[in-house]
Amino acid sequence: MKKPLILIVNDDGITTPGIRRLIDIMNNLGDVVVVAPDKPQSGKSHSISLNTVIRCSPFVFDNGPQKEYACSGTPVDCVKLAFNKILHRKPDLCVSGINHGSNSSINVVYSGTMSAAIEASISGVPSIGFSLLDYSIDADFSECSNFISDISLSVLKSGLPEGVSLNVNIPKSVRNKSIKGIKICKQSKAKWIEEFDEREDPFGRKYYWLTGDFVDLDSSKDTDEYALKNHYISIVPIKFDLTSYESISEIKTII
Amino acid sequence: MKKPLILIVNDDGITTPGIRRLIDIMNNLGDVVVVAPDKPQSGKSHSISLNTVIRCSPFVFDNGPQKEYACSGTPVDCVKLAFNKILHRKPDLCVSGINHGSNSSINVVYSGTMSAAIEASISGVPSIGFSLLDYSIDADFSECSNFISDISLSVLKSGLPEGVSLNVNIPKSVRNKSIKGIKICKQSKAKWIEEFDEREDPFGRKYYWLTGDFVDLDSSKDTDEYALKNHYISIVPIKFDLTSYESISEIKTII
Repeated sequence: MKKPLILIVNDDGITTPGIRRLIDIMNNLGDVVVVAPDKPQSGKSHSISLNTVIRCSPFVFDNGPQKEYACSGTPVDCVKLAFNKILHRKPDLCVSGINHGSNSSINVVYSGTMSAAIEASISGVPSIGFSLLDYSIDADFSECSNFISDISLSVLKSGLPEGVSLNVNIPKSVRNKSIKGIKICKQSKAKWIEEFDEREDPFGRKYYWLTGDFVDLDSSKDTDEYALKNHYISIVPIKFDLTSYESISEIKTII
Repeated sequence: MKKPLILIVNDDGITTPGIRRLIDIMNNLGDVVVVAPDKPQSGKSHSISLNTVIRCSPFVFDNGPQKEYACSGTPVDCVKLAFNKILHRKPDLCVSGINHGSNSSINVVYSGTMSAAIEASISGVPSIGFSLLDYSIDADFSECSNFISDISLSVLKSGLPEGVSLNVNIPKSVRNKSIKGIKICKQSKAKWIEEFDEREDPFGRKYYWLTGDFVDLDSSKDTDEYALKNHYISIVPIKFDLTSYESISEIKTII
C-alpha cells in the first residue's frame, strides 16, 4: 500500500516541542514533509506576506526520515509555499501544531495554527489543527499522542466533508486524571476582555502590551469549552465560508 | 438628538485616500474617532501583536472635526486599543475601509479591513467593512459615497443581528456605467491559485514573492462575485462563529 503524504506546519516555530512531537507521531503514519515558520508566529491568524519576500530553506533538526523546510513567512505562507513549490503532489493530509496553548472557542480567529489548517482545506486537502491547553515549553504531550494518531488515521481513512477542517483541543495533562474521551462540539461563544498593560519607555513615551482575560459566555453543554472543562478532547468542524446564512433575510429588511 | 459615536479603522494605513474619504462621509453622520495603522497592513487578517509592543499617538492630517490616532499595530490591535484605551464609551458603529481593492469571496479570510470589522462585532459593536474594487491610489470614490452613507445610516438606525458584520464590496467606477443597486449575497466559493515568483538575491540565495490568480468556482447567482460582475454592490453578512454545524453529524461518524 502506498504511504500517505502528510504536510506538517505550526505557528510556534519549527524547533518547538509541540511540532517535534507531531513529527514523531506522523512519521508512523506516512511520508512527512515539514514546512514551518523559522520563528514564533503566534496570533498571526490568516496573515499572508504581501509586502515582504519569503525565504525558505532545507532544515535539519534530528535524524528522522521527514523532510523539513524552515520558512520566514506566516503559517499560511508556509502552506501556500508547500503546495506550490515544495511538494511534488497534493498531500493526503495537513496537520498543524501541536500548538502550545488553546485554540478553542474564539481563539480560532486569531490562531496561526488553525489558519494554516484552514488554508489547506481551501486547497482541498483534509486538515486538522491540534492544540494542547498548556503554554509551557515543557508541556507533557505523552497522553495526547495516541489520540492525535487515532484522529489522524480516521481522517486519512474517511476524509472530511468539503471545505471542513478539524479544530482539535486537548486538555492539559494532569496527574491521576485521564482524558475521558472525545466530543464533537460547536465553537463556544466567548471573547477576550482586553486590559492593555500601559508602560513608559526610557524616553517618556507610552507603549502598550496586549493582554487580557478569556471569558466564556456560553452556557450550553455542546461547546468546546464545556468539553475541555470536563476533561474531554474537543473537536469542532470549522469552515472558511463566513456567510451568516441565517441572517440574510433580516439584512434584506435593514438595508 | 445625541450624535452617534463612530469608530473608523482600515488596513491600508491612516493616510490613504480610502480612509480619508470614509472620514469625510462619517463626519456627516456622527462624532468620528479614527484609530488606524501608521503603515500598510494589508493581508494581516485577524493578526494581533503578541510578541511586540504597540504604540499609538494622536495624529493630525486635516482640519476635520474627527479625532485621530495612528497605531503601530495591526487593524485588529487598533480596534482593541480603541475600545479599551481611547474611546470613553462603546461606539454606535465601527466602519472599516474604504479598502483599496476587493474583499469579496475568499478574500475575506485574508483581509485586515474585514477582520477589524469582525473584531468590533465580537465586542458587540455593529460593524461594516467597505471595499472598492480598485487598487489604484487614484481610485474614484465619488460614486460609492452616497451608498456608503445610506448603508451606514441604515445600520445606525436598525442595528445588526448579534455577531454579524457586513462585508460591503463596491464595483470599480466606470465611465457611462452606473452602479445598478445593492444585492445581499453569500460568499462566493473561490480560491487563489498561487504562482510564487521565485528570484535570486545578489548573494545567490533564493527568495519568493507571493502572487497568484483569483479563481471563482461558484456558478450560483446569489454570490458576491456574481453581483459585482453585474455592477451591483454586494453585501455579505458575515459571522465569527466558524463552526460547520451542517457537518457535525458526519464528523461523529468519522472520528
